[in-house]
Amino acid sequence: MRAARLHEYTDEMEEGLSIDEVDEPQVTNSDDVIVEVEGAGWCQTDNHIIEGMWEQYVPQPLPMTLGHENAGTVVAVGEEVELVEEGDQVICHPVQTCGTCRPCRQGETMYCENDAFNGLTTDGGFADLLHTSERSVIPLPDGVDPADIAPHADAGITAYHAAKKAVRDLNPGDAAVVIGVGGLGHIGLQCIDAMSAADIVGVDIKQSARDLAEELGAHYTIDPTSEDVASEIGSITDGVGAAQVLDFVGADETTSLAPDICAAGGDHHIIGYGGHIHEPSQALVNGEFAFQGNIVGRYAELQELVALVERGAVDLHTTEYDLEDVNDVAVKLEEREIDGRAVIIP
Amino acid sequence: MRAARLHEYTDEMEEGLSIDEVDEPQVTNSDDVIVEVEGAGWCQTDNHIIEGMWEQYVPQPLPMTLGHENAGTVVAVGEEVELVEEGDQVICHPVQTCGTCRPCRQGETMYCENDAFNGLTTDGGFADLLHTSERSVIPLPDGVDPADIAPHADAGITAYHAAKKAVRDLNPGDAAVVIGVGGLGHIGLQCIDAMSAADIVGVDIKQSARDLAEELGAHYTIDPTSEDVASEIGSITDGVGAAQVLDFVGADETTSLAPDICAAGGDHHIIGYGGHIHEPSQALVNGEFAFQGNIVGRYAELQELVALVERGAVDLHTTEYDLEDVNDVAVKLEEREIDGRAVIIP
Amino acid sequence: MRAARLHEYTDEMEEGLSIDEVDEPQVTNSDDVIVEVEGAGWCQTDNHIIEGMWEQYVPQPLPMTLGHENAGTVVAVGEEVELVEEGDQVICHPVQTCGTCRPCRQGETMYCENDAFNGLTTDGGFADLLHTSERSVIPLPDGVDPADIAPHADAGITAYHAAKKAVRDLNPGDAAVVIGVGGLGHIGLQCIDAMSAADIVGVDIKQSARDLAEELGAHYTIDPTSEDVASEIGSITDGVGAAQVLDFVGADETTSLAPDICAAGGDHHIIGYGGHIHEPSQALVNGEFAFQGNIVGRYAELQELVALVERGAVDLHTTEYDLEDVNDVAVKLEEREIDGRAVIIP
Amino acid sequence: MRAARLHEYTDEMEEGLSIDEVDEPQVTNSDDVIVEVEGAGWCQTDNHIIEGMWEQYVPQPLPMTLGHENAGTVVAVGEEVELVEEGDQVICHPVQTCGTCRPCRQGETMYCENDAFNGLTTDGGFADLLHTSERSVIPLPDGVDPADIAPHADAGITAYHAAKKAVRDLNPGDAAVVIGVGGLGHIGLQCIDAMSAADIVGVDIKQSARDLAEELGAHYTIDPTSEDVASEIGSITDGVGAAQVLDFVGADETTSLAPDICAAGGDHHIIGYGGHIHEPSQALVNGEFAFQGNIVGRYAELQELVALVERGAVDLHTTEYDLEDVNDVAVKLEEREIDGRAVIIP
Repeated sequence: MRAARLHEYTDEMEEGLSIDEVDEPQVTNSDDVIVEVEGAGWCQTDNHIIEGMWEQYVPQPLPMTLGHENAGTVVAVGEEVELVEEGDQVICHPVQTCGTCRPCRQGETMYCENDAFNGLTTDGGFADLLHTSERSVIPLPDGVDPADIAPHADAGITAYHAAKKAVRDLNPGDAAVVIGVGGLGHIGLQCIDAMSAADIVGVDIKQSARDLAEELGAHYTIDPTSEDVASEIGSITDGVGAAQVLDFVGADETTSLAPDICAAGGDHHIIGYGGHIHEPSQALVNGEFAFQGNIVGRYAELQELVALVERGAVDLHTTEYDLEDVNDVAVKLEEREIDGRAVIIP
Repeated sequence: MRAARLHEYTDEMEEGLSIDEVDEPQVTNSDDVIVEVEGAGWCQTDNHIIEGMWEQYVPQPLPMTLGHENAGTVVAVGEEVELVEEGDQVICHPVQTCGTCRPCRQGETMYCENDAFNGLTTDGGFADLLHTSERSVIPLPDGVDPADIAPHADAGITAYHAAKKAVRDLNPGDAAVVIGVGGLGHIGLQCIDAMSAADIVGVDIKQSARDLAEELGAHYTIDPTSEDVASEIGSITDGVGAAQVLDFVGADETTSLAPDICAAGGDHHIIGYGGHIHEPSQALVNGEFAFQGNIVGRYAELQELVALVERGAVDLHTTEYDLEDVNDVAVKLEEREIDGRAVIIP
Repeated sequence: MRAARLHEYTDEMEEGLSIDEVDEPQVTNSDDVIVEVEGAGWCQTDNHIIEGMWEQYVPQPLPMTLGHENAGTVVAVGEEVELVEEGDQVICHPVQTCGTCRPCRQGETMYCENDAFNGLTTDGGFADLLHTSERSVIPLPDGVDPADIAPHADAGITAYHAAKKAVRDLNPGDAAVVIGVGGLGHIGLQCIDAMSAADIVGVDIKQSARDLAEELGAHYTIDPTSEDVASEIGSITDGVGAAQVLDFVGADETTSLAPDICAAGGDHHIIGYGGHIHEPSQALVNGEFAFQGNIVGRYAELQELVALVERGAVDLHTTEYDLEDVNDVAVKLEEREIDGRAVIIP
Repeated sequence: MRAARLHEYTDEMEEGLSIDEVDEPQVTNSDDVIVEVEGAGWCQTDNHIIEGMWEQYVPQPLPMTLGHENAGTVVAVGEEVELVEEGDQVICHPVQTCGTCRPCRQGETMYCENDAFNGLTTDGGFADLLHTSERSVIPLPDGVDPADIAPHADAGITAYHAAKKAVRDLNPGDAAVVIGVGGLGHIGLQCIDAMSAADIVGVDIKQSARDLAEELGAHYTIDPTSEDVASEIGSITDGVGAAQVLDFVGADETTSLAPDICAAGGDHHIIGYGGHIHEPSQALVNGEFAFQGNIVGRYAELQELVALVERGAVDLHTTEYDLEDVNDVAVKLEEREIDGRAVIIP
């Protein structure tokens, strides 16, 4: 079968992956599931993987097929699989978990001590077929197209995961700030809107992103190129600050906003990871805010996100590309030319 | 009356404060309380205030009497005060709050929008008398000496406040790391021990501090000058990391431990503020940990800490000094010559 | 001034209260606030008070002016009041709190150890003027009519309070059941809808109430006179049960639904108090659900509800009556002839 | 092999079970684990099962081998089992879970939609061998005797589970009441003591149980046969009531204490199930307390309890009996003649 594979780290996106012919995956374990991929979202993280930015954090056996946002149709299952059968349409949580380590027992499937992450530590779904397990698939509701929902497998649940943490601390009248209304941010914004009565403030340098924010429910938008973000938020919140900030950019310029825009006791959620945090400890003491890291959402959170999608609460803008176009997609993303989310259709 | 006052910011601790003769405070509001100070803890923050390190964060009208850890005897009260009367012994929460802003209504008294902070934004208790309010005093249990408990008014509740947050997420078998077993740290360690069944790891460069940690309940200690903190914690926790880290130092070298010692989903609490955080956003994403700022504890937390003291769960080592010796104390603290907590007896 | 007062407990609603001429309240404390009442909601609890149903729970000095859902204009304030001034429009939280007991310090103002409850333990607002305090008034947003918002002072925050607890445990895809879509229930339903993405099921014996439920956002409705509530909820939730149940009736027939409709780990919130709970302990063990009592919401929750009203998230249907008509209103409520909420305009 | 089996429900404990010769269990699934039972705790619930008290709640195929508190040595494993191997000593969580339903994914293993409960819905461990799965075994720390720890598999985690919920809401100075300091209660009391700084009040009609309570850390004890429980607790708590009540009896007389002993906002945890709750809804509204049901603890909680046992924080008094003596044990328990916990040694 065909698979878009990374052979070595490079900054040259136009030749990042090569389309190889590889063996089809086989069922070997009792809970194996093989999925024919019908949609595979391309993610900023794919660019970062190609650049080698994850090499120091996780083991990456090269060559490796990328692609961690997959949906499609089950074509084979191990002999003890009961959740799905051949022919079922599924969305694939990117992490294959063991189910028996303590984090898995606690439902913290993202902290699995024996995990494999599609397209990050094991072969992913920019390919005709994906090898995964019963623990990582969720049957799709009727009428949902795999290509439409695929990006929710990572972009979606990452945004949902952070939004779910944030809404726990959002009372009516509180402000929630979404920094970066792009691929993840526009999902996170909708999740907050669906799950809270907070006043939502969208911050983005692009006019089109700010327009999208308003269309999707933002009560205010701020253009950081022409407005002072901190004073605008101060004015919106009567000087209190934002109870929760979701930073989908994570650049030096956005993390440095925290002391000035977070309300006392608030959280500045780090989701994007474009840069660094540089802050005196005293700033965190004085404002009693947190820089809260956020990883991909849990399996159960993907179930919840699918429920949100089913009730029409989260729109996702996607554009489809052929498997052969993966490197074009990577280049376009680098140049900020992708509107919404690119989905590879193998 | 006598008052130890700051006239201008300086790095010369030996002449930081001057003992002035000032007017005695008077009851003017219906809820005013005047306390004869019988113990006033000296805090690292007093040194920082003298150095001007808080000038950019809060308004500081100079000259100002320092001292935010006070206990003593009530000598006068406003006409509507019901909680205490003349002759009652009290510990004074350092923050005078309005009781009517939204944070006060929520019990978040540290976020009061109209607060005055003894010895930080208004006159404090390195003086014969302290002007405070009914909302900021807690009657002492019988038999508790004001000079013994005074440092709990800030050192104590700051440590307690962070410990209380931490124990919410500490299950039996989890590890809690206390970095810096000094004035605040040795209280925080005891609070964690009293309120959880976590394995406690004390980290300090001083042998005497590590000995104190073990004596107070630490299950492990680490000397960062001769041991690798991250690998020791990895070995103690079977590679999982510490569920909660309380960093009473907050220096560059201690905050940079977070990615390597925090368990997934854990918190690195910033309590000390000696330095900075410098971390790639990606580290927080990968490890899903938080840098959690911590301010002084709330009024209700000081009540809880007094309950802990009353049951003998928190020991505090203090040494008494005269009001005239304040600058000596500042110098000694700078030179790490204070064992336990210095308490000024006016 | 005129005041509708209860002189003795009775089951005869047509002569429950008498309109007396009484002295006007005066400012005596530094934080007193006198409000000219412009709207005072009539509540089922007023009927219960007249019947003597609260006598065993709280002290009730008779004769007493009833009325605990008040809004109007400030006409006088004590000398230390800063939150409002003469001429400000306010909604009055029904409980006057001390601000200095431990529950007040924690923000748990409903547990105040020195409280007075308008129209329940002290004179209320079915009168020209109401005596309350700075701690119990919230300025109204511009353009909000006191008569329109008055019922939120009790009906509203009671419903909001229970809804806020419920949404903490409501994930997308979970079901929330609202039993009794009447005065409180229709507010609770809207609060859940505004603050969660749960599937809402409205249960009511009246067709008009079920219609209102659907109009206000219920995804399903059940008529308990013709449908089996438990099997309907089982079918809606694929046999899982409802994560949260808000029982605004609290009758024997509604509390007995709990074991059959609550999901494992769920809560059956008791808000209405028309009857009893009779359940074997084993049922709670087997289903691990809770019967969760709910009292009036806190001051800070009334602020949050006002924010919800301001953003148009909570509609309230009211009908206005003269002060002289209070007994007619009591009779009509008894006979279920009040649609929405009756508001007395003194 | 031998197995103590229930053939029909009966109130005659002396002939409740019969020792049958049955086939040995075999490995058939990839995650099967066969354990040679070396200790099997006898539980009050075993008596209740024999009486038929669980028939209406769960499916019970008779004849069935009872016994849900098991520990022993692994003698065979399925081909994909990685957590344990032949020869490992383990404690067996009583519930065998699927690992793929939504509750399992959330870590709520007690709510598994496809569970089998040893000795309640499937064959248990009053037998030479027990058939369970990798998802239900926890390796024992070195030096722990299976017969000593076996009762923790149900009695222990049930008590721990309720205690863990309770300590979340227990601040220093708060009171926790343990009603019934028997098999479960004496464990629950120790768990609260290990994980909080609450004041613990033990309530029991037996002098020996009250003595045990004090020995294990209770600060107060109450004898309900000679003292008024509510007024004693009122006096201990200055009229506030107990923040948390753990009712290990669950009889009519103990549940009816709730309105008088629970603090506002508190919980009356139902763990024992000897009787009923009969309470007016108004009592729950007025006191805003909850009757909180409690089931057996989760798998992850058994891990935490094993950690508590390993650090010596939970003592368990056991007496050993032969498999042939099961009916004698049932009779003795009925007659309250078992001190501590009876453990069957097959």
